[in-house]
Amino acid sequence: MQLYYSPMACSLATRISLYEAGADAEFVRIDGRTKQVRDDGRDYRTVNPLGLVPAIATDEGLVLTENAAILQHVADRFPSANLAPPSGFERSRLQQWLCFIGTELHKVVFAPLLDAKANEGARAYALEKAPERLSLLEVHLGGREFLLDHFTVADAYLFTVLGWAVVTPIDLSKYPAVSAYLGRLRERPSVRRAASEERDLYLAEQAQRKSA
Amino acid sequence: MQLYYSPMACSLATRISLYEAGADAEFVRIDGRTKQVRDDGRDYRTVNPLGLVPAIATDEGLVLTENAAILQHVADRFPSANLAPPSGFERSRLQQWLCFIGTELHKVVFAPLLDAKANEGARAYALEKAPERLSLLEVHLGGREFLLDHFTVADAYLFTVLGWAVVTPIDLSKYPAVSAYLGRLRERPSVRRAASEERDLYLAEQAQRKSA
Repeated sequence: MQLYYSPMACSLATRISLYEAGADAEFVRIDGRTKQVRDDGRDYRTVNPLGLVPAIATDEGLVLTENAAILQHVADRFPSANLAPPSGFERSRLQQWLCFIGTELHKVVFAPLLDAKANEGARAYALEKAPERLSLLEVHLGGREFLLDHFTVADAYLFTVLGWAVVTPIDLSKYPAVSAYLGRLRERPSVRRAASEERDLYLAEQAQRKSA
Repeated sequence: MQLYYSPMACSLATRISLYEAGADAEFVRIDGRTKQVRDDGRDYRTVNPLGLVPAIATDEGLVLTENAAILQHVADRFPSANLAPPSGFERSRLQQWLCFIGTELHKVVFAPLLDAKANEGARAYALEKAPERLSLLEVHLGGREFLLDHFTVADAYLFTVLGWAVVTPIDLSKYPAVSAYLGRLRERPSVRRAASEERDLYLAEQAQRKSA
């Protein structure tokens, strides 16, 4: 499997899931600005026309885009890692969380706040939407270790998205159950390894841009 | 099964899917402004804290929110209707489209355009995002009858979301393959019935508000 990623983008959730599963994968880095494959200058828009990461290419050569689909595909590809309930209502519940994180948090709240081209109105609108959504999480995570009853790909995705709060005006310390949840996840070996590797790549990229 | 809905909201996709499956269901109407159950004044936020439709309550009394989860649940509950590939890569592909529609179209483009409280900047930002996303659809739907190789819940969702274009500045006639696709779906009995029922309810509600 190949994972197309950019450091600290939402593709981090897939890297965490792959590490959690102990899976072999090739990590193909995309430049988020030029939308080129960093190693060979290929145009990533031939893989995903929107230029968004993640995408995966399976060993059979099939390309899949969109977080919720990719994360469930990885979970199903490596069932022994138990990264998703295999079926039934618990699978529906996982899909509910993946959808909530993807729509209400990632796209409604964080995407405009992280987009340097977003106008002030769009950023203000995104910020208005944050408290209701974070409060829902705060209630759900009070007394729970994970979104479901064990670690799943939805936790990998939520960790990734909420990690972006530090570069936005969103203050997660107002949400103690959410903060404690993130603190616990941060200590998880798969999360610690994936986040530290991508943070290093991200910081090196930022430093390079500043010196350019 | 109970479906919590508001006329012409994204819950229409679930109604279409239920009709497609010939399924019995109870339709519980939510006032989109007050977030109350229209029949008995119950606060819908006790069902979904965000106040968003759809939600379903299963016959076992379990509540599920979020479109992508609900639509897949309905498809799996009525497998003979073939509303979703049961498993494998085709199921991943369905999830890719559900995620794309939910994130890139519904939440990025249409939600701010339909929200009377959205500021001008947020609306302009949403409009900027439309052409790239609709062009991706235009390419995909050229020469295809459906998103996958047969009608699925993703088509029900896409029909619903693109139907909102008429009350936004988005002109779908610039996308002939998308327009032809919508025209074909409009003739489908499940779609025709669900859309006409909800349109009547929606127009009656608008008329009532104007006269109030």
